[in-house]
Amino acid sequence: MSNEKKPNSAERDSEYAKRRREFRDAKAARAAPDTGSRGRGQPPESIHLYGLHTVRAAMENPSRTIRKMLVTRNALARMEIEDPQSLPFPVEMVSPQDIDKLLPPDSIHQGVLIEAKPLRLRKVAELKDATVVLVLDQITDPHNVGAIMRSAVAFGASAIITTLRHSPQESGVLAKSASGAFEMIPYLQVGNLAEAIEELNHLGFTTIGLDSAGPERLENTLTGEKIALVLGAEGKGLRQKTANTVSALARLDMPGAIKSLNVSNAAAISLYAARKHLDS
Amino acid sequence: MSNEKKPNSAERDSEYAKRRREFRDAKAARAAPDTGSRGRGQPPESIHLYGLHTVRAAMENPSRTIRKMLVTRNALARMEIEDPQSLPFPVEMVSPQDIDKLLPPDSIHQGVLIEAKPLRLRKVAELKDATVVLVLDQITDPHNVGAIMRSAVAFGASAIITTLRHSPQESGVLAKSASGAFEMIPYLQVGNLAEAIEELNHLGFTTIGLDSAGPERLENTLTGEKIALVLGAEGKGLRQKTANTVSALARLDMPGAIKSLNVSNAAAISLYAARKHLDS
Repeated sequence: MSNEKKPNSAERDSEYAKRRREFRDAKAARAAPDTGSRGRGQPPESIHLYGLHTVRAAMENPSRTIRKMLVTRNALARMEIEDPQSLPFPVEMVSPQDIDKLLPPDSIHQGVLIEAKPLRLRKVAELKDATVVLVLDQITDPHNVGAIMRSAVAFGASAIITTLRHSPQESGVLAKSASGAFEMIPYLQVGNLAEAIEELNHLGFTTIGLDSAGPERLENTLTGEKIALVLGAEGKGLRQKTANTVSALARLDMPGAIKSLNVSNAAAISLYAARKHLDS
Repeated sequence: MSNEKKPNSAERDSEYAKRRREFRDAKAARAAPDTGSRGRGQPPESIHLYGLHTVRAAMENPSRTIRKMLVTRNALARMEIEDPQSLPFPVEMVSPQDIDKLLPPDSIHQGVLIEAKPLRLRKVAELKDATVVLVLDQITDPHNVGAIMRSAVAFGASAIITTLRHSPQESGVLAKSASGAFEMIPYLQVGNLAEAIEELNHLGFTTIGLDSAGPERLENTLTGEKIALVLGAEGKGLRQKTANTVSALARLDMPGAIKSLNVSNAAAISLYAARKHLDS
C-alpha cells in the first residue's frame, strides 16, 4: 500500500477543501456577473476591462495579467498596435457586436475588451510607508468609487481600502469610472473594516472619519505625518463600529442650505486638505 | 378708416415677430424633449420635475410656478399631503406607468411628477452683493452640473452662470442630479460668457479660471472679497476667449500620476478653497 495512491486524511481534507473552494468560487463568479454590482465576498476569477483608455492603462500595468484581447480592426489602429502577434496574450479580431454581447447594455467599449486576472489583494501591513490612505465604508456605487479612485491617484494616496461586501468588486464599470486610475492604486477589499482601521492606527496613521455631525472641523483633526481618511455612503454615513474605531470624527463645514456633499466631492476635498496639511 | 381695425406697420411687425417667436419656441420645445440634453439657446416653456426630494424642493421654492402635479396614491402618502385639493395647482391621481410615459427610460420618479415653469433668468448685474459665484464654460453633462450645483449651495455660492448653448437647460435630469439644490441657487444662462465675466470683473470679482496648465496655484490667486470660479469641460478646458477674460488662470496642484480631476470634484475643491480664503 503506497501513500501515493491513497492520500492520508489530511491530504484528502485539503483536496476536498480545494474542490469546495473552486466550486464556491465558480458559483460566485456565475452569480455575480461583471456589472460592478455589490461584491459577494469573492473576487471573480477573471474580469472584463474595456474602452481604449482603460485597456491601455491595464497593458501598462506590470502587475496586471491579461488572458486575451478582443478587438476590432479600427480599435487596433487607434491603439497603434501594428503587430498584434507580438503581444504577450492572444488577440482575437472581432466585430463591435461581439463585444456588446459580453457587456451590460450601453457599455462604451470603443471596440476593445480584455479578459484579465483581478489584481492581487494586498495586506494593510504593506502600507506602513504610505502617507495618505482612503478607507471607504460600504460605498456601493462603482461610479462614485471610480471617481474617488481618480482623485486618490491625483492626490498621491497609496491605497483604497474597502469592504469585501457592499463595495464594488474589480470590474469593467469600476475601471471605466476611474478613467485609468484603477491600474494605478491598490484596491484592498477586507473582511473586517474595523480591524483594518485598527491596523492603520497601529501603523501610526491618524484615522479620520468624515461625519457631518463630527465634533471637530476636518482641519483641526489633521495631525501627524500619516493620514487615513474614512468615508461612508451618502445618507447612511459611517457604521457605528467604524465610527468607534477611528482616531477622530471630523466634519467639513458648509455655510449653505445643503449640509452634505456627494461622497466623491467630499473625498476630493478631504484629500486636498490632507495633502495641504502634509505639505505644510 | 380706423387704426383699431387695421394695425399700423410697426404693430403688425411686432405682432408677426411675436407669433414667429412663439412658433420657434414651441418648435424648440418639441425638438428638445426634457432629457437634459444640450440647450438650443431657448428655455423650454415648461419642464418636468420628478422624484420626492426634487418635487418637495420645488414646492418649497416661492419663485417656482407649478402648473400641475401627477402623483400616485402611494407617493401622495409618502409626501404627507392629506388634502391634494388644498394645493394651489391641479393634482391628478395616476399610476406609475402614466409617469413613466412622460420621462426618458429608467428615470427614478418615485411616483410623482410636476409640470412647472422654468425659473426666471436673472441678470449678472443682480449679483453685485454676492461673494462667491461659479461660472461654467460649456460643461454639457447634466449629472456633472447637478453635482456642482449641490456643492455650490453647500458652500454658499450665490449663482451659477453658464452658457445658453452647450450647457444643460433646466430639466428633470439636472434637478434630480442636484438633489434639491436646483431650487436653491439661481442658474443664469447667458449668450456671451466672456461679456458676463467682464461684468463680474467690473462688479469687483476676482475671476479665476481653473486650468491644469495655469501659471499660479489656486491658493495664490484667491484675493479680494468677491470670488468667481470659472471651470471648463473635462478634456476641452476653458475656451480661449474665456481664458483671456478672467483676471487669473490658476491650477490645482496634484502630486500623483493623474493630473486632472472630474470637473465636479475640481469645483468642490475650488469652492472649499475660496470659502477658506473668504473666512480667513
